[in-house]
Amino acid sequence: MSKSELNLTPVAACAADPVVRDPLTPTEAVELAAVFKALADPVRLRLFSLVASRAGGEACVCDISDGVEVSQPTISHHLKVLREAGLLTSERRASWVYYRVVPEAFARVSSALITESVHA
Amino acid sequence: MSKSELNLTPVAACAADPVVRDPLTPTEAVELAAVFKALADPVRLRLFSLVASRAGGEACVCDISDGVEVSQPTISHHLKVLREAGLLTSERRASWVYYRVVPEAFARVSSALITESVHA
Repeated sequence: MSKSELNLTPVAACAADPVVRDPLTPTEAVELAAVFKALADPVRLRLFSLVASRAGGEACVCDISDGVEVSQPTISHHLKVLREAGLLTSERRASWVYYRVVPEAFARVSSALITESVHA
Repeated sequence: MSKSELNLTPVAACAADPVVRDPLTPTEAVELAAVFKALADPVRLRLFSLVASRAGGEACVCDISDGVEVSQPTISHHLKVLREAGLLTSERRASWVYYRVVPEAFARVSSALITESVHA
């Protein structure tokens, strides 16, 4: 799923969102469910969290392997799933691949679920 | 998963969260992945959205059946999954069951993923 397909909401729009948004359309629900599916695996969620918690929201794959008890190919597979879901971007620099959180993707997930009761 | 097991974060804490949070622990990741799994189905996500978009974050099951092209037993199953994930509560009043969004559950999901890049 590409960024444009996700119709990403600017981060700054968060505070200005209407307190009650319209229900998701079937198409929006399919797109968003795919993002949640990418986050629905504990190892994948930890890897995402490890990237997100680094200063600048960026981490080298060499930094995030420590402390995760799965093989390097499995880590690479999970990072690829997160990238394909639009949650991370990656960039190769010299020998290492660096992963970065896509803040707009998170804003889209948040704004899709923000309700009056959350704001109240 | 119960509310206490989720160690829910108060909604008001959102704005005061540190800009970079610690990575999720393995236990937190397992708990949170279960919440994302509940939201990772398009029909379930639409049902959640239909409840969340109602004024007061509450809806009668009779209100949210319209426009969702699945059978009533399937709707009931999906609502049960959302309830078991701590995202909805339910209450029977006369002949109908009413579902309500649990705002703390959403705040927990949001705060677990908030990063410096999102706030920047």
